[in-house]
Amino acid sequence: MTAALHAAPLTGSRIVGEVRVVGAGLLGASVALGLRAVGVDVILADASPANLSLAIDYGAGRAARDTDNPTLIVVAVPPDVTATVLAAELAAWPDALVTDVASVKVAPLEGLRALGADVLRYIGSHPMAGRERGGAISARGDLFIGRPWVISTHDGIPAAQVSVIEGLALDLGAVPILMTAEQHDASVALVSHVPQVISSLLANRLNGAAESAVGLAGQGLRDTTRIAASDPELWVQVLGANSATVADILRSYRDDLDTLVGILDAPTAPGARRALAELLASGNAGVARIPGKHGTDRRFSQLIVMVDDTPGELARLLTEIGEIGVNLEDLRLEHSPGVPIGLAEISVLPEAETRLVADLEARGWRIAQAGA
Amino acid sequence: MTAALHAAPLTGSRIVGEVRVVGAGLLGASVALGLRAVGVDVILADASPANLSLAIDYGAGRAARDTDNPTLIVVAVPPDVTATVLAAELAAWPDALVTDVASVKVAPLEGLRALGADVLRYIGSHPMAGRERGGAISARGDLFIGRPWVISTHDGIPAAQVSVIEGLALDLGAVPILMTAEQHDASVALVSHVPQVISSLLANRLNGAAESAVGLAGQGLRDTTRIAASDPELWVQVLGANSATVADILRSYRDDLDTLVGILDAPTAPGARRALAELLASGNAGVARIPGKHGTDRRFSQLIVMVDDTPGELARLLTEIGEIGVNLEDLRLEHSPGVPIGLAEISVLPEAETRLVADLEARGWRIAQAGA
Repeated sequence: MTAALHAAPLTGSRIVGEVRVVGAGLLGASVALGLRAVGVDVILADASPANLSLAIDYGAGRAARDTDNPTLIVVAVPPDVTATVLAAELAAWPDALVTDVASVKVAPLEGLRALGADVLRYIGSHPMAGRERGGAISARGDLFIGRPWVISTHDGIPAAQVSVIEGLALDLGAVPILMTAEQHDASVALVSHVPQVISSLLANRLNGAAESAVGLAGQGLRDTTRIAASDPELWVQVLGANSATVADILRSYRDDLDTLVGILDAPTAPGARRALAELLASGNAGVARIPGKHGTDRRFSQLIVMVDDTPGELARLLTEIGEIGVNLEDLRLEHSPGVPIGLAEISVLPEAETRLVADLEARGWRIAQAGA
Repeated sequence: MTAALHAAPLTGSRIVGEVRVVGAGLLGASVALGLRAVGVDVILADASPANLSLAIDYGAGRAARDTDNPTLIVVAVPPDVTATVLAAELAAWPDALVTDVASVKVAPLEGLRALGADVLRYIGSHPMAGRERGGAISARGDLFIGRPWVISTHDGIPAAQVSVIEGLALDLGAVPILMTAEQHDASVALVSHVPQVISSLLANRLNGAAESAVGLAGQGLRDTTRIAASDPELWVQVLGANSATVADILRSYRDDLDTLVGILDAPTAPGARRALAELLASGNAGVARIPGKHGTDRRFSQLIVMVDDTPGELARLLTEIGEIGVNLEDLRLEHSPGVPIGLAEISVLPEAETRLVADLEARGWRIAQAGA
């Protein structure tokens, strides 16, 4: 049986008229492909004729014509040129609603105001589609499915216009979320921009370290530094466009860091252990605020099962978990250097844990660790 | 077919004689269970009679007898009492080799020297067994399989004694790694202790943030803050015992952070973008130093496949990947709040990617994103 998700064809768009997509990189071409898949007439534009041809070859849309009359324009160009391209599109198409997909939202709006553009036809978007790498060649119409799509309205925008952008997000399978440009930039500074730089600076500490030290790296270091592998060029633009908000959060971070270094410099001073415990407990409280899988705070039980590092073994484990009738809430693989064993960390509902452990052991699986 | 890994019984120990395990918490009881599984006569001791009975009930060993004559003693007590317990064991058993499992190695050795103990019969150990939570009830003889087990020798220790500790690690399925106490503490400060506090302080920023902001959390924030959920009590001890080394690394981190905040405060100043790009590129270089799955730097190709959030769907995907004949190098599940879809990020060898994408799409799977 094929599951409904990948069998169901998408049927029809919520958008009336032509959509013009400006910028045929990963995000622009993905928007275009997704809209084509629901039958929208997509006009593509790109400053590079080669990029444009490539995106058209991939089926992302068609070249512009003299008879074009787009009702909606999606600008998907790098952050530092977003405002100027938006202004040009607003001027060129006086009847169209215009949005962008930049990962900051205050700077484009302020840029438009400074340029004297008609901001009442502009609504900012930020589809939070995970990775931002590659060009049209990496584009996928499915890129936005299940992802938050922030829509930033501002004073004077009619509700009907906001509905058009919501329709765009829904057409692409995304989850529309309304917030102001300021709320958006403060939010992404906290959940995306600050984690990025904190991770980059942590990874920077590994330069010059002994090979043997780095060789002891476990999952904690891997997780905390994973995003440090992100593209510097993109992040220079993102951070530059949200610098004041990011700097403010980093200043608070630095205050905590100074406190911590002070504690570690006098670890046996009266109150030092308590102060350290409180800092760490605040971290516990902070991480508990991150919503879980289904938007809830529900906590799961974890168990770790040893899996042979050969094709099919992990599948066999998951098949047997399915046979046992337990739903996997989350799964993460860990590997240790030099050994042909994977450790699969499995999250399940707490009430299912005891039975799952017993049944898996009865089937011959070795459980490395269980318990909350 | 059951894979060799979980079918093969372990056969025989490398250790001659009785092993006394002092401290029947998660680590001690796991060591004891693992040794029992290879036929070792394990003597258990714990300051708490209740803990001791529990561990014996779980089959981790037997109570002490007047006729005991252990050749090896494993001390698995909290870091702040490790040195005093080690000293007592060295004094009580003048013919035994003694080790511990504390996650710092300089402090126990220095503590023993300060107490005038016979440090020539002491060799420190640090089994890097992931989580450190729960008591004997969470113990598993399999806990150490495939994990690094650091062995810290010091001047005057005969090679034959080191071999005994290596035998202990190998008996438990771990990978022995030799380094001095100083090398060990500097290494774990870098790869474990500093990431822990950096993550805790980052998570602390989420306290007081708007619900809507935290609601935009993606995988980057989840990964960077996962270890911030660790037990403060344990970490107060670990950080306290390695405070100078951790503080030194944090000072370098703070220098970078100061530089970064300075750049963000004047993002359009001459050279600001270049300086920011260089900091981020240094992070790229640092993360690239972390060894991959099999102890190499080999990079894999990633693709993201959409999976229905119902029992059996992920198993079906992995079964089909097995049928296609591609080995899964790594796997990670992502979820977005509010949607019944999981995104499975799959890592495979680069040469297998094109075929896997084509074959999966032919089988009806929706690929959200592919490419390096």
